[in-house]
Amino acid sequence: MMARWPDDRLQKLFGIEHPVLQAPMAGCSTPAMAAAVGNAGGMGALGCAMMSEDVIRNNAREIRQASNAGFNLNFFCHAPPVLDAKRAQQAQKRLQPWFERFDLGDVPDMIPTHHPFDRQICDVVLDIAPTVASFHFGLPDAELVQSLRDAGIIILSSATSVAEARWLASNGADAVIAQGVEAGGHNGWFLPRDGADVSTTFGLVPRIVDAIDVPVIAAGGISDGRGIAAAFALGAAGVQIGTAFVASNESSVSNTHKHAVIQADGDTTVATRAFSGRSARGLNNRFISEMAQDTDWPDFPLMNTATAPLRGASAKAGSPDAIAMWAGQGVGLATGGSAHDIFTDLIQDAQRHLT
Amino acid sequence: MMARWPDDRLQKLFGIEHPVLQAPMAGCSTPAMAAAVGNAGGMGALGCAMMSEDVIRNNAREIRQASNAGFNLNFFCHAPPVLDAKRAQQAQKRLQPWFERFDLGDVPDMIPTHHPFDRQICDVVLDIAPTVASFHFGLPDAELVQSLRDAGIIILSSATSVAEARWLASNGADAVIAQGVEAGGHNGWFLPRDGADVSTTFGLVPRIVDAIDVPVIAAGGISDGRGIAAAFALGAAGVQIGTAFVASNESSVSNTHKHAVIQADGDTTVATRAFSGRSARGLNNRFISEMAQDTDWPDFPLMNTATAPLRGASAKAGSPDAIAMWAGQGVGLATGGSAHDIFTDLIQDAQRHLT
Repeated sequence: MMARWPDDRLQKLFGIEHPVLQAPMAGCSTPAMAAAVGNAGGMGALGCAMMSEDVIRNNAREIRQASNAGFNLNFFCHAPPVLDAKRAQQAQKRLQPWFERFDLGDVPDMIPTHHPFDRQICDVVLDIAPTVASFHFGLPDAELVQSLRDAGIIILSSATSVAEARWLASNGADAVIAQGVEAGGHNGWFLPRDGADVSTTFGLVPRIVDAIDVPVIAAGGISDGRGIAAAFALGAAGVQIGTAFVASNESSVSNTHKHAVIQADGDTTVATRAFSGRSARGLNNRFISEMAQDTDWPDFPLMNTATAPLRGASAKAGSPDAIAMWAGQGVGLATGGSAHDIFTDLIQDAQRHLT
Repeated sequence: MMARWPDDRLQKLFGIEHPVLQAPMAGCSTPAMAAAVGNAGGMGALGCAMMSEDVIRNNAREIRQASNAGFNLNFFCHAPPVLDAKRAQQAQKRLQPWFERFDLGDVPDMIPTHHPFDRQICDVVLDIAPTVASFHFGLPDAELVQSLRDAGIIILSSATSVAEARWLASNGADAVIAQGVEAGGHNGWFLPRDGADVSTTFGLVPRIVDAIDVPVIAAGGISDGRGIAAAFALGAAGVQIGTAFVASNESSVSNTHKHAVIQADGDTTVATRAFSGRSARGLNNRFISEMAQDTDWPDFPLMNTATAPLRGASAKAGSPDAIAMWAGQGVGLATGGSAHDIFTDLIQDAQRHLT
């Protein structure tokens, strides 16, 4: 049976059957996940922000071995961090008891281990030639965006305000992801907000739809067919869904993280800067609670590097206490299973609510 | 032309034509606003939390003089505040420069000026016999709820989590308002949340719909027909809308507040405890910014009493700097005009998006 959608702009733009994108989710997505979603008629994605060039090339090859569908490679383009020695020392001191608890010795120095998207990575992407290159925290240098566009690669990025959406549409984005604060993982804001809160999906999508001419993809809190239908009602041309795939068989997060996502009732997520230095949403746990009073963490991704051994050790020990269990507010609707089945269920459920 | 809606439970429950409720908004709603919405086929409301018994009686009389429609009287049932002398003194010290700026002399003592719903007010409500009595911050004592129900008055309250929705449905609520964090004014949470963030409309409505048997009314970020259609898609039986009426002719907020609401682009709201002691969303301004670093404010409504002269003086001076300009994240879609026209436009816009 052919699915019917209220809008066909994303199907035409991406050459896909269903206007549903799997969120890239660095540290969670895998070639198998991206291939499964692509094979089911959506747009699969791989979060490459923390991968070396070789790993990116190998993963792209794996996707192509498993699927003829297009896919989306995602990168970060954050402002390079400024090392503030005093803040770094304070953070190391706060983390030390946690490192001792997991027998990890001293907290490592604050060194950025993943760099913003640059010419070198851009050449790798041009070589791979994915259907989509997507970015978080803005867009890379105009010259890099142009070389991707010249090669026919479609450009996406996330907006958390109308101002950001306008900026992205004016600087080469072929479609804009309107990311509400309920989304799991890192919030993509990149323009100053003068103390105002980050907008929600409901508060954001209609205003961005009114403000720009390129298609808008709703993201944040969408975890079933009702959410997909609601996103179209708000004016979106499609949706991006992450949390529903976090506990999938193909996800690379720990079993402890998957188990917590499946058990969560949905009122237990919190946005924290304590894991990475930038605000990101996950299931509340002991680490986040204990760090909640401190807010002056070193810049992203310095803090991410410092907490990496801790997050790994907590996962290895099967303890949820210090894992960054990224998940959005739709987590209460998430189940396990194969990425193919999760995607197909989402499409069928959406069709029921759209007709 | 008869309007068509995907759900008729609220129409039957309330005896209204359109499943759209005007939010009560203490300090903003008026008898004229409630009557206009009722006359247009919705459920009008009056926020009575800060009114004396006489004012409530007079206002109810005014609504009935202007309309034969039913209406909703809204009350607070917050936990009585505990006066902490040290916190009170700190707050007074922080407020003093603001009081001097507006020539207000000394910051007043911290005294709660509006009390939670009690037997005395309950008797007034029984006497008035509105169609609906609604509550914020939970429900009053079981005995009071029962006496309202025995009199055939419909009971509503707001939930900000699935746990709160279940509690309300089990304790006498005939319908539950699922209030997302994007809503303007005071967030209605009343059960402990252990450090987790308050859910958004998108993250909240579908899970509450799944959890309880009474109708769910979506609130927060809904400011046009797209939002109304999206709320139905999420499973709501109807919507409650506040921000769209803040700048209406019938609103009692200051012209400075109305002007700011009409001008706002929607990415400029922030949830703050600095005005009242409880988290409430409004347009960011100088007072909120300057107080943003402090969070240890006296309990609601002690802080509300202390800031009342300041808020009034700022409005009187035509300065937005220290007005509590309550507004939700849908504020970017709000316009002025009569409450009748605003309501009718919402209904017509919703009909376009629902068919």
